[in-house]
Amino acid sequence: MSLPIHPIMQQSFAVIDREIGVHNFSPTEYAIVRRVIHSTADFEFKELIEFSPQAIEAGIAALRHRVPIVTDVSMVKQGVASLVTQTFGNSLISGVECASVALPGKTRTETGLMQCWQQFPEAIYAIGNAPTALLALCEQLPASVSPSLIIGAPVGFISVLESKVTLANTPVNQIRVEGRKGGSPVAAAILNALIVLAWEEESRGDREK
Amino acid sequence: MSLPIHPIMQQSFAVIDREIGVHNFSPTEYAIVRRVIHSTADFEFKELIEFSPQAIEAGIAALRHRVPIVTDVSMVKQGVASLVTQTFGNSLISGVECASVALPGKTRTETGLMQCWQQFPEAIYAIGNAPTALLALCEQLPASVSPSLIIGAPVGFISVLESKVTLANTPVNQIRVEGRKGGSPVAAAILNALIVLAWEEESRGDREK
Repeated sequence: MSLPIHPIMQQSFAVIDREIGVHNFSPTEYAIVRRVIHSTADFEFKELIEFSPQAIEAGIAALRHRVPIVTDVSMVKQGVASLVTQTFGNSLISGVECASVALPGKTRTETGLMQCWQQFPEAIYAIGNAPTALLALCEQLPASVSPSLIIGAPVGFISVLESKVTLANTPVNQIRVEGRKGGSPVAAAILNALIVLAWEEESRGDREK
Repeated sequence: MSLPIHPIMQQSFAVIDREIGVHNFSPTEYAIVRRVIHSTADFEFKELIEFSPQAIEAGIAALRHRVPIVTDVSMVKQGVASLVTQTFGNSLISGVECASVALPGKTRTETGLMQCWQQFPEAIYAIGNAPTALLALCEQLPASVSPSLIIGAPVGFISVLESKVTLANTPVNQIRVEGRKGGSPVAAAILNALIVLAWEEESRGDREK
């Protein structure tokens, strides 16, 4: 069963296809980059999104295995909830909602995300806001069980660049937005594009049975 | 009672203050622009945000009068829920959640937003995603009761520019993001900055009593 695509999204993708210019993305990488540009109207993301070699395959496999999804903040969770429900129904947890107060010297998002990590170390992590949460997660690596995928797209001016450099230096499967840019819709768009790819693969698998 | 500001946000604002360059914003306008740049790390918003003459005063007054807030999508609602709860406790409604299905020829967000408009014509409307919802809202204007404020920040490639031109041509109080850019965090940042301004005004009023 293929996912319905809204005509407005299809028309938007056609505009992006016309305007994107030359690139070297694989078809699956481009599906992700295009969805980010669709959600931001910002073509700079073409230069900012980096994929580790097995990131997309690992993300697709994890989604199909119904691995939990942990987001840093509730806006990312909100941004993917509809597609998750329509497809694989993975558990979907917002880190910040897991902590009612911050531990001393930590942010609340970081505190909550670390609680999630203890429970679901193998999860897909989608970080669209809090560099502190991404840094805390990277400090646990390498671990006996690694996250299936980290989507590293925090946004802002403080600790954001450092958190992305730290992530880049870990061996974990990752899709990373370089620089200061990122954000909840960016992390959500990356994950939504992956869900669509995984669902297409699942549907092909079903047809081949 | 003043709102707590997280040290990371304070440091981010200091970076933006250093990097923003020359501008002609009033202090209250700049508080809004700075919060948008904080949430996107995109200085282009300095050139994109437009305020109608009474927009900020009208938004502040409406917040202080506990006028309902209607968002187009749930991510915008999610992005302002925390500050709304900490301050004025306005009713907070997501248009798309008000319609389980789209009316024929309309988007679901537009369908839901129009239901909200019939119930709360005087609301503050924060549109961070759906140009169709913004266009539908503008088509009702002028009405016997106008929205207190429209935050017009849909994002994307289809109907987005048209929806913003349509809004600009209405007499309603508005804060508008020109061009294709916008998004849920942008609409939420504009509203959150307004809430902070309104809360400061409320606190000053309390002290003067």
